[in-house]
Amino acid sequence: SVLSSLNHCIEDILPNAQVVVKDAKEKGFYNLLDAHSNKWEEKWSHSDIVIKGDIKAQQAIRFNIFQLNQTYTGEDNRLNIGPKGFTGEKYGGSTYWDTEAFCVPFYLGTAPKEVCKNLLLYRYKQLDKAIENAHLLGFKNGAALYPMVTMNGEECHNEWEITFEEIHRNGAIAMAIYKYINYTGDSSYLEDFGLEVLIAIARFWQQRVNFSKAKDKYVILGVTGPNEYENNVNNNWYTNTIAVWCLKYTIESLEELKNNNFHRFKEIVSKTNMDYRPEINAWKDIIENMYYPYDEKNKLFLQQEGYLDKEQINAEDIPSGQRPINQHWSWDRILRSCFIKQADVVQGLYFFEENYTKETLKRNFDFYEKHTVNESSLSPCIYSVIASKTGDIEKAYELYLRTARLDLDDYNNEVNEGLHITSMAGTWISIVEGFGGMRVIEGTLQFNPLIPHNWKSYSFSINFRENILKINVSHSNIKIKNDKGDQIMISVNDKKYIIEKDATLEV
Amino acid sequence: SVLSSLNHCIEDILPNAQVVVKDAKEKGFYNLLDAHSNKWEEKWSHSDIVIKGDIKAQQAIRFNIFQLNQTYTGEDNRLNIGPKGFTGEKYGGSTYWDTEAFCVPFYLGTAPKEVCKNLLLYRYKQLDKAIENAHLLGFKNGAALYPMVTMNGEECHNEWEITFEEIHRNGAIAMAIYKYINYTGDSSYLEDFGLEVLIAIARFWQQRVNFSKAKDKYVILGVTGPNEYENNVNNNWYTNTIAVWCLKYTIESLEELKNNNFHRFKEIVSKTNMDYRPEINAWKDIIENMYYPYDEKNKLFLQQEGYLDKEQINAEDIPSGQRPINQHWSWDRILRSCFIKQADVVQGLYFFEENYTKETLKRNFDFYEKHTVNESSLSPCIYSVIASKTGDIEKAYELYLRTARLDLDDYNNEVNEGLHITSMAGTWISIVEGFGGMRVIEGTLQFNPLIPHNWKSYSFSINFRENILKINVSHSNIKIKNDKGDQIMISVNDKKYIIEKDATLEV
Repeated sequence: SVLSSLNHCIEDILPNAQVVVKDAKEKGFYNLLDAHSNKWEEKWSHSDIVIKGDIKAQQAIRFNIFQLNQTYTGEDNRLNIGPKGFTGEKYGGSTYWDTEAFCVPFYLGTAPKEVCKNLLLYRYKQLDKAIENAHLLGFKNGAALYPMVTMNGEECHNEWEITFEEIHRNGAIAMAIYKYINYTGDSSYLEDFGLEVLIAIARFWQQRVNFSKAKDKYVILGVTGPNEYENNVNNNWYTNTIAVWCLKYTIESLEELKNNNFHRFKEIVSKTNMDYRPEINAWKDIIENMYYPYDEKNKLFLQQEGYLDKEQINAEDIPSGQRPINQHWSWDRILRSCFIKQADVVQGLYFFEENYTKETLKRNFDFYEKHTVNESSLSPCIYSVIASKTGDIEKAYELYLRTARLDLDDYNNEVNEGLHITSMAGTWISIVEGFGGMRVIEGTLQFNPLIPHNWKSYSFSINFRENILKINVSHSNIKIKNDKGDQIMISVNDKKYIIEKDATLEV
Repeated sequence: SVLSSLNHCIEDILPNAQVVVKDAKEKGFYNLLDAHSNKWEEKWSHSDIVIKGDIKAQQAIRFNIFQLNQTYTGEDNRLNIGPKGFTGEKYGGSTYWDTEAFCVPFYLGTAPKEVCKNLLLYRYKQLDKAIENAHLLGFKNGAALYPMVTMNGEECHNEWEITFEEIHRNGAIAMAIYKYINYTGDSSYLEDFGLEVLIAIARFWQQRVNFSKAKDKYVILGVTGPNEYENNVNNNWYTNTIAVWCLKYTIESLEELKNNNFHRFKEIVSKTNMDYRPEINAWKDIIENMYYPYDEKNKLFLQQEGYLDKEQINAEDIPSGQRPINQHWSWDRILRSCFIKQADVVQGLYFFEENYTKETLKRNFDFYEKHTVNESSLSPCIYSVIASKTGDIEKAYELYLRTARLDLDDYNNEVNEGLHITSMAGTWISIVEGFGGMRVIEGTLQFNPLIPHNWKSYSFSINFRENILKINVSHSNIKIKNDKGDQIMISVNDKKYIIEKDATLEV
């Protein structure tokens, strides 16, 4: 029996451990095995993905789903998900923005909402530390900068270019709140916990931008985007975009609460010492006057100012003996190159796809994909989703397979360091949001599925609000079974259907 | 007696030390004291600066000259000058670009040429290590990157933003060769040693630039300029300027040698494996097509691209309790601010003043001086020289006093870490090149003196080629005595004069 002082007084550990052991002994091996198997069976029934016709893809996704369920159960909001889970010591078991940006959709889709809610509460409980962290950097008025890496809310990383500059993580933490509420419909989370976090994050962005007289716009200087093969750049498109989104979402959420529950609105304004009208006016001014780097000639969102001054080389033209470049090139050479470690502009396209036409998505995808070396495990899954969205199923499949089999095939020569747990959640996203085209828009679950050419079919389960749905996609049809819960309206290929209890829709 | 294994076999140290002790005992205390005093008297006769009417300025410059002579005697080209000399452990006694950019003029002006030559030979002897250092970073074909900090030619610094990015140091090392030859007329240094260093540095710049299709110009991305309150900027004006100057100077030097000593030219081309015509054509292409950041509106050389996007605040508006900012602000805040640690554009104006009109010097000086916090000791002296050049004697004096009394008055609250030895040489530059307006142009020594209002007079000695000159500047006249050597032609206030042996010119 293994007990932790996180859950027991030191002096109770020994007697409590004895109780557990005694209890186990009484139950006996076969009862324990049954309980264990039943628990796993339940987990697999909610989270399994079955792929027919592609044994490599099937093996990969099951390996990944197993690891994710093995890593996090969502029962304790003091715990989170390290990039390597419990499979390696790299990253020290600490929490990164990986949780919010990559893991949240998996646990939302495959587990009761409390599981994901505990990931959010983890950050809520660390809000004071995030405010303190920002304060140490010179921010004030309750602005919060969540740490890049943490165990207990304090920054555990030690490089300025990451801790001070990779501030987009604040955006992902706000995004997870949005995703949780959008998916579950549990808007009470906002007034109970979320808004305090959003206000603190909005205040951070307000102070972190500055107004450039030269550009007559707000700018965000000196950042590192998701692509960590750049440091200290100005106006990272992704960061500027998510900063403005945070401000918008915070204002919308506040205004909604003000209309719906004025008493609670006043409480939050009071608790956070908001000077309401001036503060949201300052945010609105930033929203309206943010600068976004853009290349008019090629109609591209620019990863950052000056990106096109770099020598433009395609990743496929790097001699194979020199990849991964982070094991062969000097840091200097990597920084100056055009090569992208992980989705950066494309991460923004993923979060905010509804703002862009398919042509815009494709144009930016095509440009950045060429330069992306995917030397972060968190990269190909996001590219894969956008490839699916633009209908390029072959590219989407190629990227899916790369991300799904990363640890099985050890593409980056580093599996000895442990598994890429958080990127495994990205694999799930590649299938469910990518191939399956699953979205939740205005409370309605939507599917716009594609299927890779060499697959016969694939199927997955979705835990959506009060329902459990079983989706099966083949080349000839899409079947959706309302496996649990009352009738539900969903959208398939942009057409709405109602599926009765226990019924199966076939499109 | 103190003997070093640098100069003696270990087994000889004890017997040799005994010889030295025996010899000292035989000479006796008073003879040793006399020898010591005579040596110092000789040093002071060549290097003293006498200021009448300003006891604080007088005290400061003598304190500084004493420390400089105490630190480096130029007898051993394996030794160099640490920023703290022997007065503190900070910087570990290592060599920085301070030597070339700040100390060289002092030793050229006050000591026989061999003293400065040994500083140059120190780098010549470390050329192989500088080539190896560049090679480790991915450069080839004999390109050299001298280390930012070194004892034996290897890089001793450990931050990428300094070691990989603060590459302008290569320019200062080339500049010291130019200054040595320009001052001493000893052009044999080029063919004996200097050209190999210049070729290796030119090759570095050739590989370090890249051609930006977006700008249709060569750019230098990802650098740190002299102002270390910026990191990883694109197109630092100073770096781009000195890079192009290096290429020009290397080509000129090679072409001159080709015309004057074809045999030696062929030897050097062969030793350095130069593909002569293609290599210098590539350099010429860079010279002709380099990008320099410039603000058309205000007609300013831009410290780097995007500098004007920063919030423009004057240094005098920083609350006094927050200075020096590097002891009060987060690194993040410093990096994003417009504040300049040490002369950056203005360092370029100092090195290349002949390329710019006084109006251009003044316009850029005025703009950058406002934003400069002078938290490097190497800053005010350079600003002071440009202030003198543009005729602003009050500003020049204010800056002189700041740099000269830095350690006596402990402006930056850090004298406990040791004295700012290399910046002390900058103080000498402020007087001799600044107030005295001394230059050597086409082999002729020039003076265009000013005198601070509160000084009665100041005088200094100059060791120039075969002559020693004693210069005295008062409010009514300039006196120059040809103290040693044959007749010499000099220029005072842009008019040429011949001074006979032992004669004194009065203007």
